[in-house]
Amino acid sequence: MLPTFLDIATLSEGYRSGRFSPVDVIREVIARIEAWPDKAVWISRFDDAALIATAEALVAAGPARADQPLWGVPFAVKDNIDCAGLPTTAACPAFAYRPDADAFVVAKLKAAGALVVGKTNLDQFATGLNGTRSPYGAPRSVFDPAYISGGSSSGSAVAVASGQVAFALGTDTAGSGRIPAAFNNLVGVKPSRGMLSGTGLVPACRSLDCITVMAGTVGDADLVRSVASGCDAADPYSRALPPAVLPQSGFRFGVLAKAEREFFGDAETEALYNAAIGRLAMLGGVAVEIDYAPFRECAALLYGGPWVAERLAAIESFVADHADAMDPTVRTIVEGARGYSAVDAFRGQYQLETLRKRTDVEWARMDVLLLPTAPTTYTVEAMQSDPIRLNSNLGRYTNFVNLLDCSAIAVPAGFRSDGLPAGVTLVGPAFADRALAALGDRLHRLEAYGMGRDRETALPEASALPAAPSDLIPIVVVGAHLTGMPLNHQLTGAGGVHLKTCRTAGDYRLYALPNTTPPKPGLIREPGLAGDGLIVEVWALPPAAFGAFVNAIPAPLGVGKVTLDDGSEATGFLCEAHAIEGAREITALGGWRAYIAERAAAPA
Amino acid sequence: MLPTFLDIATLSEGYRSGRFSPVDVIREVIARIEAWPDKAVWISRFDDAALIATAEALVAAGPARADQPLWGVPFAVKDNIDCAGLPTTAACPAFAYRPDADAFVVAKLKAAGALVVGKTNLDQFATGLNGTRSPYGAPRSVFDPAYISGGSSSGSAVAVASGQVAFALGTDTAGSGRIPAAFNNLVGVKPSRGMLSGTGLVPACRSLDCITVMAGTVGDADLVRSVASGCDAADPYSRALPPAVLPQSGFRFGVLAKAEREFFGDAETEALYNAAIGRLAMLGGVAVEIDYAPFRECAALLYGGPWVAERLAAIESFVADHADAMDPTVRTIVEGARGYSAVDAFRGQYQLETLRKRTDVEWARMDVLLLPTAPTTYTVEAMQSDPIRLNSNLGRYTNFVNLLDCSAIAVPAGFRSDGLPAGVTLVGPAFADRALAALGDRLHRLEAYGMGRDRETALPEASALPAAPSDLIPIVVVGAHLTGMPLNHQLTGAGGVHLKTCRTAGDYRLYALPNTTPPKPGLIREPGLAGDGLIVEVWALPPAAFGAFVNAIPAPLGVGKVTLDDGSEATGFLCEAHAIEGAREITALGGWRAYIAERAAAPA
Repeated sequence: MLPTFLDIATLSEGYRSGRFSPVDVIREVIARIEAWPDKAVWISRFDDAALIATAEALVAAGPARADQPLWGVPFAVKDNIDCAGLPTTAACPAFAYRPDADAFVVAKLKAAGALVVGKTNLDQFATGLNGTRSPYGAPRSVFDPAYISGGSSSGSAVAVASGQVAFALGTDTAGSGRIPAAFNNLVGVKPSRGMLSGTGLVPACRSLDCITVMAGTVGDADLVRSVASGCDAADPYSRALPPAVLPQSGFRFGVLAKAEREFFGDAETEALYNAAIGRLAMLGGVAVEIDYAPFRECAALLYGGPWVAERLAAIESFVADHADAMDPTVRTIVEGARGYSAVDAFRGQYQLETLRKRTDVEWARMDVLLLPTAPTTYTVEAMQSDPIRLNSNLGRYTNFVNLLDCSAIAVPAGFRSDGLPAGVTLVGPAFADRALAALGDRLHRLEAYGMGRDRETALPEASALPAAPSDLIPIVVVGAHLTGMPLNHQLTGAGGVHLKTCRTAGDYRLYALPNTTPPKPGLIREPGLAGDGLIVEVWALPPAAFGAFVNAIPAPLGVGKVTLDDGSEATGFLCEAHAIEGAREITALGGWRAYIAERAAAPA
Repeated sequence: MLPTFLDIATLSEGYRSGRFSPVDVIREVIARIEAWPDKAVWISRFDDAALIATAEALVAAGPARADQPLWGVPFAVKDNIDCAGLPTTAACPAFAYRPDADAFVVAKLKAAGALVVGKTNLDQFATGLNGTRSPYGAPRSVFDPAYISGGSSSGSAVAVASGQVAFALGTDTAGSGRIPAAFNNLVGVKPSRGMLSGTGLVPACRSLDCITVMAGTVGDADLVRSVASGCDAADPYSRALPPAVLPQSGFRFGVLAKAEREFFGDAETEALYNAAIGRLAMLGGVAVEIDYAPFRECAALLYGGPWVAERLAAIESFVADHADAMDPTVRTIVEGARGYSAVDAFRGQYQLETLRKRTDVEWARMDVLLLPTAPTTYTVEAMQSDPIRLNSNLGRYTNFVNLLDCSAIAVPAGFRSDGLPAGVTLVGPAFADRALAALGDRLHRLEAYGMGRDRETALPEASALPAAPSDLIPIVVVGAHLTGMPLNHQLTGAGGVHLKTCRTAGDYRLYALPNTTPPKPGLIREPGLAGDGLIVEVWALPPAAFGAFVNAIPAPLGVGKVTLDDGSEATGFLCEAHAIEGAREITALGGWRAYIAERAAAPA
């Protein structure tokens, strides 16, 4: 009855239609957990009776309310995030404690109707990208048990990819929410720093940590992100900024130039990255080769600089008393922090700011950055025999993201011939999360890889995200601002996005205004006129740019509401009536472009 | 011929009118430097011949070009900022070096026509707020040589206040650009972090340092700030953000509640602070008592936390070899950094972020914060006998500002009965500099204290700043958005500022549009009509709010350019011509308010 992969859209549709109930789903979740051969996925979970009782209580309280977009959706929580009723271990039994309260984000998800199943395995103290650094065992890729799941959010990735839960919370400092998504054919949403509160999270690097979401589609993961978001006075790093916008067509995306391509011999992962570049270009993007060196140097700071001191700061008294109880690799890394002075810490900040300035130069050339999520993958055996170097290889394209305060979304990018998946990551500015999700969803849906371990299933249409970010303001342009016309640069230079070319409703007349430079038309509405409408373009601008644009329009032009041929209305260019005195009416030409062409063809 | 205080506006006017030339002024500058009894002001300066030659070359190149707003204006540079041709000492002879190039901001000022006179004394390595920590002597208050000048920008303040130069560059980490301004009856503009490049500056705390401007009026200082501003790829902390706006009327300003008032027994300075509160209220502000405790705790972090490690990081190799050559107090402070580990440095950051969250609560209740610049002042003798504690007292109301990324402007606030001045500081969010200047200038001009040592001179009108920040977009409203009308809240709720009530030009007609709720008028221009104009209000909105406002206007209304009775033009409400069919013309009533009054008076 239930699909192999439990995506949110399908569950919600099933609940609405009555095909199944949250109790059915939670019973299936229990059965799947029991049946899954890899026992390293979970560190703890609520027992069967408690899970069923919670689902029954949810059903008894009535169907999903409007404020419960996650009603009946089972999810897993990485075991460095507090859930009341279960211990928090951070994959270190000696560190375990029983929290009194849910973490801020867990409470938000539960309030939205989601059902916590349990706590998942991780690289101890979230220190690692591979998933093998845990006394609870190494979760394995759902595609091949010889291979790592990726980490540190290892158990979360496997729980989702294997269909045991619909989504999972991970965390991400160096890439821990993205790498395991890539290795398990999942989407990994790495929200902007501070967007999801860290209250109730065991810090790795407190100034950088982000709670993340893994799910089958970008739409599902972005829904969870938005539900879990919110400013939290108790978390000093919590913040709420206005969303950043990205152009959704005609955007420029950065790609690795040849000199900075390093796949550690994995030509198939490189080919999958190249294919993703091609798909993003098909979506209207223009690929721009950027210099990855400053990003790479920044990535190296995370473990090769003073930020490791944050890992020690987080658990210093524990390390002092129980270092022997730690994973030896994690211990080596954390204790390495003792070599750094405060002077080193500030010097590290200076280095970071210097590198940021260099990356700014690259950002000026692109709207979004498309990178391989991981350059390759490894077997558990290989990883355990060379734990630091291979882990560092994994983080080559992820480690810089939080240091540079970027948003990021990892999406599946297909499979190697040995059946292991690879992923790509879209990186954007801080608080571009929503715009990045819209783009990431389109990229993901352009070619089918299924979801998680189910390589055949189609991505549910119900979770598709609308392409145009709703925070841009549309503007109907009629004349000199059309594509290719002399004032079009005012739109493109202000972050304008071309939404569509269409006609106005039939009751407009168009005039060529005399004495205008460059030549400009005047559009005037005459209710009752039954014409064919005039060809116009609809662009969209960020609010401030829209404001400045409108304010710069000279008389006798202005803006009002223009009705389009589909009956919709948008702000667009209109003309004061007095100005058409003596102007030639050009309504019959059907639009400004035809008039300009006619002028150009006319003898001088 | 020249006034006692050399302000920029007066010099520029004198140059334009030909009353004197830059050569006259530079000769007078030389004479005043020679005549001033306090020889601790300057560390080095260009010799007389070089100064005169530079002024002569400027004159020979012709009158001020449009890009030379500081043409012929003599200025001083704090001696931790590079000027090619003079050594940089940071008030430590053993540290001195000869820079090859001007600091970024010095180059900008010179390009704008300003004339560098020389380098001024400071607390060594800008470590201090009092001006006594220098082997070049302690510059004295221009009002009483027994008293400190304030620091660390001590020489800069005295050079300006004594009429030796028109403005001076200082720097400010803890308050070094504000305290000496207060102690010498000057304006001290502390720009937002990163607005003025630090290239060519000897760092104190590199992540916090700001180059500042001291001058006689806010207008002069803000002019210099804007000329010196600019993004600099070579300074990793350089940044350019959109200007933040402040309401200029109806604003809320935070003031110290009783519990957090500490003037160290200086009741007169407290009384001057109270008087400034009264003046700001007279300008339309509403005083709000805020909890200063989180700001105070933050201030304590600057010297009592790991940020002192930045002072060591800046000069570590020098300290290693030449600690004996340092001022003993400065040495003690800088060497104190050795006790801090990287873990301490990150813990300090966590504390700062925790305090920032607490200050956010206070910021939600105010638009701007009005504080005493310094709680009191001290004699040089007192300061030297208790150098750490008294210095710490001075910074009580300044030390938090850069840690919390605020903009600030110190303005004179009058004199104690012993003839020593006190100041107040307006603190705003980052990049509110221009809006803060507009407010600070109005506050300064409300009561006369002269400029610098000249307590009698009037503040030149030519340097007055317009009240409305130019980054708001004006909008002419005609009907339902007028003050007191049903849609006025759309303006006030979006940060709108009422600029003026006036009439349109005479060639507009006004109509009462039928079937509008709430009732709305339509304004239509008819060139040639010789009417009396219509009463309208001009409001101003931030660009994004303006964009959203315009986008929400329903047909048949829109915006275009409206000509006002003074001939100026602004974006304002217009109406599509087709909509006035069947509408009553109400032009003769003179405006919408008269029409509404008539309706209300009419029998139902």
